[in-house]
Amino acid sequence: MVAAAEVADRLAALQRKLDAMPPVRAMQIRIAAYEQGALRLSAPLAANVNDKGSAFGGSLASLMTLACWGSATLALEGAGLAQADVYVQDSQLRYLTPLYDDLVASGRLLEGFDWADFIRAYRERGKARANLRAEVLTADGKLAASFEGRFVALRGNGGESIDRHQR
Amino acid sequence: MVAAAEVADRLAALQRKLDAMPPVRAMQIRIAAYEQGALRLSAPLAANVNDKGSAFGGSLASLMTLACWGSATLALEGAGLAQADVYVQDSQLRYLTPLYDDLVASGRLLEGFDWADFIRAYRERGKARANLRAEVLTADGKLAASFEGRFVALRGNGGESIDRHQR
Repeated sequence: MVAAAEVADRLAALQRKLDAMPPVRAMQIRIAAYEQGALRLSAPLAANVNDKGSAFGGSLASLMTLACWGSATLALEGAGLAQADVYVQDSQLRYLTPLYDDLVASGRLLEGFDWADFIRAYRERGKARANLRAEVLTADGKLAASFEGRFVALRGNGGESIDRHQR
Repeated sequence: MVAAAEVADRLAALQRKLDAMPPVRAMQIRIAAYEQGALRLSAPLAANVNDKGSAFGGSLASLMTLACWGSATLALEGAGLAQADVYVQDSQLRYLTPLYDDLVASGRLLEGFDWADFIRAYRERGKARANLRAEVLTADGKLAASFEGRFVALRGNGGESIDRHQR
């Protein structure tokens, strides 16, 4: 059992991390929910609109990527592994119908993947991979966009050095 | 032959269209070059940085998507088809190495596709598809990220109605 206050603290810290990234702050992305290992993020249409009055594809891509990245980050933090850095390695996106509503994306593990396995791999090797999926629905429930991505967690070592030298 | 002034006008109009999209304006995306049907866009790292001091994946996705979308838009405008609207339908992204430099993406047709065919299809059917590719390199020439996407051009009819009803 994890105390609710502890989860709330981690979500607040994640929100601050999102707000500290200028392009994310500009999209006004907010944490909407975190349940059963799935992170839901939202962003207002007005800050993410394209030339056609619908949601900008790059904002949808950003929101879905962050929903998955955030759920992997929270899974690691929940296991006491806050030093891990999570990176997206590749992704496939589909844009199915224009979205004229606020953007809401839920990120979760793809079927066949398990947070316990992910955590175990990270503990054993300092590196773990998982495939995640996110979706954005229209207000009336149609699939507007979908995302599948491969993510890797690496020892963070407090910053850039590992990125510069090991990747 | 197309007059240089005419191309400059179209690029200025495209820059205005980019600046009119709030999330794109926040990323400070600028048109850097347009040559041989390929559009190059740039954006400063400072406006597009993540929590690790490197380029945010969502900004890279946005920049590469827009470089391809913009080159398709310019190809149509160059053929006098400014009423067409271009949409991204799906995309595959790869993030290969963190980028600590300003972001520069070039968008161009994938091999096997031709702007002349794309224009002809649009004229004949009011609809055309093409696959495009964009890349972002580090300052020392390594591939930082790549994008391949399928785009469709549809009759724009001056706005949203076609999107709402036909897609």
